[in-house]
Amino acid sequence: MTTSFLSQILKEIGSLDEGAMAEARARQNILTKPRGSLGRLEELSVKIAGITGKVMPRIEQKVIVTMAGDHGVVAEGVSAYPQKVTAQMVYNFLRGGAGINVLARHIAARVVVVDMGVAANLEPHPSLVSKKIALGTRNMAKEPAMSREQALQAIKGGIEVINEEVAKGLDIVGVGDMGIGNTTPSSAICAVMTGKPVDKVTGKGAGIGDEQLASKVKVIETALALNKPDPKDAIDVLSKVGGFEIGGIAGVILGAAAQHIPVVIDGFIAGAAALIATKLCSKVKGYFIAAHVSAEIGHRAILDYLGLKPLLDLEMRLGEGTGAALAISIVEAAVKTLAEMATFADAGVSEKLD
Amino acid sequence: MTTSFLSQILKEIGSLDEGAMAEARARQNILTKPRGSLGRLEELSVKIAGITGKVMPRIEQKVIVTMAGDHGVVAEGVSAYPQKVTAQMVYNFLRGGAGINVLARHIAARVVVVDMGVAANLEPHPSLVSKKIALGTRNMAKEPAMSREQALQAIKGGIEVINEEVAKGLDIVGVGDMGIGNTTPSSAICAVMTGKPVDKVTGKGAGIGDEQLASKVKVIETALALNKPDPKDAIDVLSKVGGFEIGGIAGVILGAAAQHIPVVIDGFIAGAAALIATKLCSKVKGYFIAAHVSAEIGHRAILDYLGLKPLLDLEMRLGEGTGAALAISIVEAAVKTLAEMATFADAGVSEKLD
Repeated sequence: MTTSFLSQILKEIGSLDEGAMAEARARQNILTKPRGSLGRLEELSVKIAGITGKVMPRIEQKVIVTMAGDHGVVAEGVSAYPQKVTAQMVYNFLRGGAGINVLARHIAARVVVVDMGVAANLEPHPSLVSKKIALGTRNMAKEPAMSREQALQAIKGGIEVINEEVAKGLDIVGVGDMGIGNTTPSSAICAVMTGKPVDKVTGKGAGIGDEQLASKVKVIETALALNKPDPKDAIDVLSKVGGFEIGGIAGVILGAAAQHIPVVIDGFIAGAAALIATKLCSKVKGYFIAAHVSAEIGHRAILDYLGLKPLLDLEMRLGEGTGAALAISIVEAAVKTLAEMATFADAGVSEKLD
Repeated sequence: MTTSFLSQILKEIGSLDEGAMAEARARQNILTKPRGSLGRLEELSVKIAGITGKVMPRIEQKVIVTMAGDHGVVAEGVSAYPQKVTAQMVYNFLRGGAGINVLARHIAARVVVVDMGVAANLEPHPSLVSKKIALGTRNMAKEPAMSREQALQAIKGGIEVINEEVAKGLDIVGVGDMGIGNTTPSSAICAVMTGKPVDKVTGKGAGIGDEQLASKVKVIETALALNKPDPKDAIDVLSKVGGFEIGGIAGVILGAAAQHIPVVIDGFIAGAAALIATKLCSKVKGYFIAAHVSAEIGHRAILDYLGLKPLLDLEMRLGEGTGAALAISIVEAAVKTLAEMATFADAGVSEKLD
């Protein structure tokens, strides 16, 4: 696969609009409240102004992209759930019964479910987007999880997904994941990219015990020793120890940034994808909003590495985009204060005493 | 004033429904997600089940009660804004231009604006509830802020307000405040009730400087030395160093708990009211949800004293109920997961491996 699509998208990712940010900040300062008293809501509204280039941005069209994929490394016994749960949960998403469906309805967002590489031939469904690369990755403890070609294809699939959503109308996107075993590649990516020891960034995922956790750490260490992913080459890292849904999410992130759409990063797996995207283009970080800090231990390392301060800390660790959904509602609230609050002058409210 | 209304309401405040909580917890455990992976959302849904006595509670009718009052102590120069801003902001609330209006619209909540004792004769308005006790409190640095009678009247006013809202239909209430100078009585109440030194629980409110802060601390110390509020007698504390809106909020809190309505406590001023309410009836704490931790320094002391863990930390310090509005949306999301998510059995999803 030619990489021209990638160079193209990376070229399109620009800096934030400083002018719009300055104007948004100035407006926050004349709204009827003590300056700064809306705290992070004010910062968020200014950031969205910078991303969109609009002084009073609106967030109306909201999408959660939930990308699903399977992982060959589950053969090593790294997960608390059987692999078939990935496909079962995809059907649950399509029927509207999963956590992300409930939380997306709560914030009036569309859920876009993408098969990036589930280890089952899923039945077609009008709401299922297929960018399937293979029936799951290979076992990274024995060989590279995927080829370089497949890694690029995953990113390209993500870019196509976000482009389709932008065409329908989109003001903000949240990125989430589904994939039994996918905290394992995410911890591997996290260790490579942040340079932290594997045992400091590897947790219990969906609920393994202490013994299984020790074994999971060893599996990841084996995979890293065997494959030697190059931390300076994001595509190398993604292909050797990544996952198709992780690559897909990285693609959504890059594509959204290229189109000036704010990207709400969900939890640990989306965070690993954000590491990949950031290595490809450091400017993409400006478009990130960290939804929450996951209970999965490696997530804090990712947030620190990317310099992101999460909006929420609700001890969640479900993935799917559930944290992103809650955070999008806060971002929406933030831009509403900027657009809808009265100014001191409009409301005839006296300003601060000198 | 007879205190029979107060004994009556305190008698009506019961314990949470343990049976409903156990059933809600059991249901959370069979929903299609790893157990506990929705973190505090799961806890919240169980708590709301306990408060309402319903295994699958719904939150549809939402109200923010924003209580306004003025404070004689502003004569001591404790605030960054002139006193007339309280009345100006009430008009801003009634026109829909304030922060709380924007955030309440965002979560589809009604805003009930109550004049508990603004220092101006406000023009009648169909949306303004008047429970006015006086044109502001007296200067607590010179004399008690109000009479014992007035303190009881403030609480009674709050109970009446919540009863009217329950009659219209109510599933959750958030309590907030407006009152220039009201961090001063709130810090006084906080110091008395928690036993912390005044300078540890007194902050810059809407934005005073360091010198003014030092003077504010002295004013509060003077008021406490002069009035000697009895920490064991909540009505004594409220009358000597409180405020009409603080008493009103305490009344809303007590009345809501008596009717099994969850109460979302906004920030520092609502927190001071929660201290008063809790001293009157410790069971009321079971009905509290702490919305956020305010940037105002004394708030953390209140939360710790009440044993409450805030849902949000967004560096907000506006009051009005703005933090409560954002938190209500999270509580609503939590109960939706309980009611709307598919179970493992319903969705045909495999459970955890043994």
